[in-house]
Amino acid sequence: MPQTTPLPQGTMIGILGGGQLGRMLSLAASKLGMRTHIYCPDSHSPAFEVTPHRTIAAYDDEAALAAFADAVDIITYEFENVPAATAEFLAARKPLHPGANALAVAQDRLKEKAFIAARNIAVAPYRPVETLDQLLAAIDDLALPAVLKTTRLGYDGKGQRVIQDRSEAGAAFEQLQPKPLVLEAFVPFEKEISVVVARSSTGEVKAFDAAENVHLHHILHTSTVPANIPAALEKQAAMAAKAIVIALNYVGVLGVEFFVVPGAERPTLLVNEIAPRVHNSGHWTEAVCLTDQFEQHIRAILGWPLGNPARLADVVMENLIGDDSLAVTELLPGGVQPHLYGKTDPRPGRKMGHINKIVPKAE
Amino acid sequence: MPQTTPLPQGTMIGILGGGQLGRMLSLAASKLGMRTHIYCPDSHSPAFEVTPHRTIAAYDDEAALAAFADAVDIITYEFENVPAATAEFLAARKPLHPGANALAVAQDRLKEKAFIAARNIAVAPYRPVETLDQLLAAIDDLALPAVLKTTRLGYDGKGQRVIQDRSEAGAAFEQLQPKPLVLEAFVPFEKEISVVVARSSTGEVKAFDAAENVHLHHILHTSTVPANIPAALEKQAAMAAKAIVIALNYVGVLGVEFFVVPGAERPTLLVNEIAPRVHNSGHWTEAVCLTDQFEQHIRAILGWPLGNPARLADVVMENLIGDDSLAVTELLPGGVQPHLYGKTDPRPGRKMGHINKIVPKAE
Repeated sequence: MPQTTPLPQGTMIGILGGGQLGRMLSLAASKLGMRTHIYCPDSHSPAFEVTPHRTIAAYDDEAALAAFADAVDIITYEFENVPAATAEFLAARKPLHPGANALAVAQDRLKEKAFIAARNIAVAPYRPVETLDQLLAAIDDLALPAVLKTTRLGYDGKGQRVIQDRSEAGAAFEQLQPKPLVLEAFVPFEKEISVVVARSSTGEVKAFDAAENVHLHHILHTSTVPANIPAALEKQAAMAAKAIVIALNYVGVLGVEFFVVPGAERPTLLVNEIAPRVHNSGHWTEAVCLTDQFEQHIRAILGWPLGNPARLADVVMENLIGDDSLAVTELLPGGVQPHLYGKTDPRPGRKMGHINKIVPKAE
Repeated sequence: MPQTTPLPQGTMIGILGGGQLGRMLSLAASKLGMRTHIYCPDSHSPAFEVTPHRTIAAYDDEAALAAFADAVDIITYEFENVPAATAEFLAARKPLHPGANALAVAQDRLKEKAFIAARNIAVAPYRPVETLDQLLAAIDDLALPAVLKTTRLGYDGKGQRVIQDRSEAGAAFEQLQPKPLVLEAFVPFEKEISVVVARSSTGEVKAFDAAENVHLHHILHTSTVPANIPAALEKQAAMAAKAIVIALNYVGVLGVEFFVVPGAERPTLLVNEIAPRVHNSGHWTEAVCLTDQFEQHIRAILGWPLGNPARLADVVMENLIGDDSLAVTELLPGGVQPHLYGKTDPRPGRKMGHINKIVPKAE
């Protein structure tokens, strides 16, 4: 049921998840005059520092979930692994955006690939794998190398293993949990790009410019905008991202990652994965866009007009991982915008913040 | 004593005052990974919605002030009327920025004008007024019309009265409280501009571009950037603003309001007043600058490198007063950036939010 009246100032937005994405969503909501209530099991969540309203409880604690739903007007989340039962429980009590349907698709690599492919948007060739026999048959179909992945709960390179040789199949199959798995053909991609797209509860759709992404140790390292790709390819990526949110009847911001694959005449695009939330590769929008992805998400779920995603400058976003964040003040001279997440423990591999290096457009 | 080491992530910043300026300072501090503790007597303060750390107490409650000082690492404020005793009490316990000295100057129109004039920066002609006889003598000196003002606690047109005729002197003198007063020559200004300038605890100084301000009913209505003034005048305004923060040994962001007065050959500048805090006429920086005034203030008091104040686009900031904010979503199409303060009661004359209308620079 489309929401027809924009929600007013002071609306209490419930956010599942208290990490940096929840924190940045809360800050954006505050800028629009809204209030936020963070729900997270971890009492040290960075998002707890930016609002007085919190629930510390497990995601399957129905009493806590019911009280949370009572305390808020609308619910969103910062991570795609919200348990389906939790999403259903909450959606029965208050509007949940993005909806349980989008979550179910995005939580499962097999459903996701089937959904996207059914819209005539290309994905890497893949095969479902429930048994070792299926894996061996899939290897014969797709050839090696290939990537075996869990269908659920993977992120930042976790839950996947590259298979170079048929002899590795048994160990890889045993190792990866939970089942079922999916085997994906190895894609000899030239680069990775992503598009952050928004659809509002009124049906309006807008996409940000594509970012070109570089990963280090399976964690996003930099996003550079504009991406160094042909204009036609960027347009195609935006069209695909928009088609996906429309097909999902989606409300909120969604990240779509693509591989750019060399072709005989020109490069082509394959969707790698989608994320039903604000996306690390969209953090550059905060520094240079008329409206950033966090505000866009909040506008979308409130039924407000979407903001103008136009970009005022070129930019390189760089993640600060682990100790990178400790000497942040040394990185700042020269027009660098920092964003730190207020995490107290800079463990190796932990996302502690990011910086945006802004390059004003030539006059 | 200059602070030599930048304060780290997680620093607890105490903020006196819980209005929209305190709220926006808190949001900016959160973006840098800091925590904030808001101190305000009013339990409905908008800033209480953006941090879990609060004290609700009077500004002269020494037990509450002592506990607040214990709970924070550094203290700043959103308003210039912090009582001197409060500032001294806190400054004895934790670093207070801007310092008690700057506050004492900015709280008193007479001290302020004398301080600025002593730096060879022009102010409107003025006379101190402690008695009605002094007022009548001052009227003879400065001629009419002239503006009689309190030296303390005035804002948004409160605490002042225009005198058109000598016969009004007695009533105006009786009416205005507290004494002493100051009589200012009426300045036939062409326009008003302002410059927001920052000085860090390490001594670094940077100014934002000048804004051209239009007031309605004594309340700021719009700030337009760039100001439509000669480049030499804009440069002079920036130099004056920088000279003031250097002379005050100031730490933080300061707003300087100027009158642009027609001259025989070219217009000249008179300082109208200064405000030792982030300034309503600097709200445009949030939408189009590499670093905005709120982040700049936080960087300054933390001893971080100041941010680049460069502007990526032209902009018009418009305040939303009273009911203006209720239909904010109707104002948004076309690249308008809203900022609402989360106030629940849109009383007439109350600042409820602002919008920034952004005009990208021609390519």
